[in-house]
Amino acid sequence: MTREQTLQTQPRFVTLEGGEGAGKSTVLAALREALQGAGADVVCTREPGGTPLAEQIRGLLLDTHHEAPSADTELLLMFAARAQHVRETIAPALERGAWVLSDRFTDASYAYQGAARGGDVAFIAELERRVVGIAPALTLLLDVPAAVGLQRARGRGAADRIESEQDEFFERVRGGYLARATAHAARFRVIDAAQPAHAVAAQAVAHLRAHMDALR
Amino acid sequence: MTREQTLQTQPRFVTLEGGEGAGKSTVLAALREALQGAGADVVCTREPGGTPLAEQIRGLLLDTHHEAPSADTELLLMFAARAQHVRETIAPALERGAWVLSDRFTDASYAYQGAARGGDVAFIAELERRVVGIAPALTLLLDVPAAVGLQRARGRGAADRIESEQDEFFERVRGGYLARATAHAARFRVIDAAQPAHAVAAQAVAHLRAHMDALR
Ligand SMILES: Nc1ncnc2c1ncn2[C@@H]1O[C@H](COP(=O)(O)OP(=O)(O)OP(=O)(O)O)[C@@H](O)[C@H]1O
Ligand SMILES: Nc1ncnc2c1ncn2[C@@H]1O[C@H](COP(=O)(O)OP(=O)(O)OP(=O)(O)O)[C@@H](O)[C@H]1O
Ligand SMILES: [Mg+2]
Ligand SMILES: [Mg+2]
Repeated sequence: MTREQTLQTQPRFVTLEGGEGAGKSTVLAALREALQGAGADVVCTREPGGTPLAEQIRGLLLDTHHEAPSADTELLLMFAARAQHVRETIAPALERGAWVLSDRFTDASYAYQGAARGGDVAFIAELERRVVGIAPALTLLLDVPAAVGLQRARGRGAADRIESEQDEFFERVRGGYLARATAHAARFRVIDAAQPAHAVAAQAVAHLRAHMDALR
Repeated sequence: MTREQTLQTQPRFVTLEGGEGAGKSTVLAALREALQGAGADVVCTREPGGTPLAEQIRGLLLDTHHEAPSADTELLLMFAARAQHVRETIAPALERGAWVLSDRFTDASYAYQGAARGGDVAFIAELERRVVGIAPALTLLLDVPAAVGLQRARGRGAADRIESEQDEFFERVRGGYLARATAHAARFRVIDAAQPAHAVAAQAVAHLRAHMDALR
């Protein structure tokens, strides 16, 4: 492998991870408020997506109107969208000094395309180094039994392609995330997301504040 | 790198390569006729595309209604589409004994994303090994000065995103293809595509017939 890079950790880049219905979108709103209350410039974004083209790739990934992507196709589409997201949205925001809150990022590929789908983790890591290049300084993992999250998420209407997987798939996602949190303990904070939403949000905000204080 | 594979050459897999307007689609029709005339089962396909999902990825690649993909995004979208194309269309056809004629394949990524766009050839080769896995036994390169091909292609109406590149880009594409032909001389046949269409088609068919004879 040539031109291999190590990842650049970005102090003001914070990601939210967790399975379907764990409460990521709910917590993101609380984190944004906390940052804005502290006078920070904040960009909220999500994956797959976060640019017009990357949102179209998201559509191809989640849509059920064509044949399902193979595991390799799914993995490459995720990283195609992520490369675009970093270059067009995340990097420019960080460069001007803004905070970036992203609802999912590369850890989701390790959990979904790696642990749950059985993809080769060495290849995922190589894609990360080659086309992503950056890592968040803080990742909040909202951990909840898969069945609990799915019940919350399925209250929302028609399931997309990934939401239509079997329950064991989502248990593998959960295990994949917990393994990432153990392997990258310095940046991960695991929150018990089976708690009421206000308690989850309060813990998430406390972790963010501790991180902000540590940056001073 | 783990799980590295070498490429499997497929005897009945034939690809057509060349820049914009070189005459690939015109020659493909002549090759199909020759094969059908010999009683063969033939599947004609193209890249990017060749399955419903891969055709949608093609749309994202060529379309000018969103921001342009970064070089990495373009490369990963091409290989996402190609992985799907191999699994859904090319491999099943070859397995049942059909011939497959493809208007472009992996060589196009070496020429466009590699030589013309400056992408890392080692990374392209790794994507090829990991997510493509197969190679054609015969590749017909329709070689023509970029300006001649562009003039033919631009007679057709609005240019897509790639057709809108500068002329130097297409000269680098041409050079990239010629370098591939030199490096993989056993499977490449280079045809002077500045000749009249009937002469180009006749040479292409002659190369195909020689290849069919060699397989007996
Ligand atoms: N801690 C909680 N307890 C109970 N319900 C919750 C909790 N957090 C969120 N919810 C509710 O569960 C549903 C899913 O929450 P949310 O959309 O925030 O999850 P998500 O992780 O963003 O889901 P997805 O992965 O589908 O985007 C929403 O209806 C939300 O109001
Ligand atoms: N050898 C030739 N001499 C002159 N004109 C040709 C020749 N071959 C093809 N043409 C014409 O040039 C145009 C482009 O040909 P064709 O569509 O076959 O090229 P192509 O390589 O498939 O192009 P593209 O890369 O845009 O798909 C068509 O109008 C075709 O009739
Ligand atoms: Mg959400
Ligand atoms: Mg054509």
